[in-house]
Amino acid sequence: MDYRTSGVDIDAGNEVVRRIKRLARSTYTPGVLSEIGSFGGLFSLGSLGLTDPVLVASADGVGTKLKLTFLTNIHETIGQDLVNHCVNDILVQGARPAFFLDYLATGRLSPDVAASIIDGIARACRENGCALLGGETAEMPGFYQDGEYDLAGFIIGVVERAHIIDGKRIAVGDLLIGLPSSGLHTNGYSLARRIVFDHLKLEVSSRVPELNATVGEALLRPHRSYLPIVEPLLGSGSINPGSIKGMAHITGGGITENLPRILPPGTRAAIDRAAWEVPQLFRWLVEAGGVPIEDAYRTFNMGIGLIVACRADDWPMLLTTFREHGEPGARLIGRIVAGEPSVTYV
Amino acid sequence: MDYRTSGVDIDAGNEVVRRIKRLARSTYTPGVLSEIGSFGGLFSLGSLGLTDPVLVASADGVGTKLKLTFLTNIHETIGQDLVNHCVNDILVQGARPAFFLDYLATGRLSPDVAASIIDGIARACRENGCALLGGETAEMPGFYQDGEYDLAGFIIGVVERAHIIDGKRIAVGDLLIGLPSSGLHTNGYSLARRIVFDHLKLEVSSRVPELNATVGEALLRPHRSYLPIVEPLLGSGSINPGSIKGMAHITGGGITENLPRILPPGTRAAIDRAAWEVPQLFRWLVEAGGVPIEDAYRTFNMGIGLIVACRADDWPMLLTTFREHGEPGARLIGRIVAGEPSVTYV
Repeated sequence: MDYRTSGVDIDAGNEVVRRIKRLARSTYTPGVLSEIGSFGGLFSLGSLGLTDPVLVASADGVGTKLKLTFLTNIHETIGQDLVNHCVNDILVQGARPAFFLDYLATGRLSPDVAASIIDGIARACRENGCALLGGETAEMPGFYQDGEYDLAGFIIGVVERAHIIDGKRIAVGDLLIGLPSSGLHTNGYSLARRIVFDHLKLEVSSRVPELNATVGEALLRPHRSYLPIVEPLLGSGSINPGSIKGMAHITGGGITENLPRILPPGTRAAIDRAAWEVPQLFRWLVEAGGVPIEDAYRTFNMGIGLIVACRADDWPMLLTTFREHGEPGARLIGRIVAGEPSVTYV
Repeated sequence: MDYRTSGVDIDAGNEVVRRIKRLARSTYTPGVLSEIGSFGGLFSLGSLGLTDPVLVASADGVGTKLKLTFLTNIHETIGQDLVNHCVNDILVQGARPAFFLDYLATGRLSPDVAASIIDGIARACRENGCALLGGETAEMPGFYQDGEYDLAGFIIGVVERAHIIDGKRIAVGDLLIGLPSSGLHTNGYSLARRIVFDHLKLEVSSRVPELNATVGEALLRPHRSYLPIVEPLLGSGSINPGSIKGMAHITGGGITENLPRILPPGTRAAIDRAAWEVPQLFRWLVEAGGVPIEDAYRTFNMGIGLIVACRADDWPMLLTTFREHGEPGARLIGRIVAGEPSVTYV
């Protein structure tokens, strides 16, 4: 008996490592000191020239969006979902990404599928100026079904201590700006899959006239990164740094659960649901599934992927900046009122 | 249809988050600026007082050791395995741990099991002076079998740039010291499980006279951390900093695959297999499985969990230090000779 007959293929693993090395190298920034293959990845903070650096860290998965990846056999974009989700999670605290590590666990390792996944991760890392510093590719026989895998990501970003965005300055009278999502992002897939596959009995290749797309196309659209839109407004950014008081990334739990996470005591968010048009994908899912409206806003992002809180006076400047940096759909969606941290819909 | 009927229980998730918050708080060090619940965890580097800080990062899982956890229903120690594995992976480059994040993915979330796992993670974090800064607990219905989960960890450590340990100074004539492992650590479980369960038809509760333990006890022994043993010798440590030229953590691939990772061109490691007694657990597995000896040293750690390279003159001082810091089993196991990065056994 040796290791290969027990289901673990060290040579296939080494082949994947070689491919990953090439992909990772394409993401390297001046801070990277090591290559993958040493036990840990090394990143020099001196390269960033900060006075009082604070690290901002986040761990995330992509949830059951993976099932769509398996059904469609499209593995090129799930890495983007993962990286962009993580980038947004630290962006909302004012951090720019420094580096990323992934965890990819499979039953049996297909070097081609692994390379597709990591290729998507590396592409998104380059787009966000974030080094893919390391990761773990685990082959666990008898653990995952054939052709299935799980994927998690860990990101480290950096922010000057004086420029941390934490929502503490949010006050009654402040305004809330919403930035459009690109689809379901990475949340609500258990419910969406149940509606589409169990209830409507559709296939990933089924064409949905209301969506002008197949089920697979509509549900797989990658989670977007808000870094290019928001970066000019971050502390040490080029335009009015400090004007953003707080930001919420609308992930699992929707606006209802995520926005209160940044609200200080004594404040409540009033959101005008008529301020934006809920994209057709969400309207179709909610209607087909008979999802109560309160549940919908607690499950899906409903078309808003990031919410920015600012002083009432700063609102026009922020909207202009967002629009100039590529987001014409930025719009006012609500206001901070007196109350306790929660969301009410108007 | 709402989210709960689709298999995701947000309230159970929130209950787990509350418990995790308490556990995480017990690990906080002066560097931690935030509580879990914000989107990212915040860690101030200023608290460490370094001149030219380099971050060392690593991602890891615990592999199919998890299957033993499921079979025994003992979830308290797998977190130690995960944290200690990660601590060792960055320790070998000279880094002390700063913070840790976990990824826990399950089919259906049992708050008690999740709390046991995170409790083990938090305990190991405290023991290593490492803050549990965040993590992701993902409930993915239809993804993992009932009662099963996957677990990954990401660690960030810090080292002064001048004190990075990278093996580059290793030269012909240097000596290799081995530190004992505490068992299989987190590698070789696919083969071990095949031998024990498929071939020998044992149960986790079966008593093995040769091991003076049950199968479950012998195979579940936690991966140990080498931080307390090695820390006094790290750069800015109290005893002879700089005397360690290189360190290899013996993980998947055994001594055969891991030691070459730190060897510079022109060097080869000659290991004397008679220098230490291979623990009974490994001898029993190798014999019962008829595992060829070369495969055994390429799969299991065979009783050596960490290898330290040093100048020949420094060897007695290192051994004394290791022994004084709680590791009487430290011993000389080999020497660097001319050749290309690889291991030969004598």
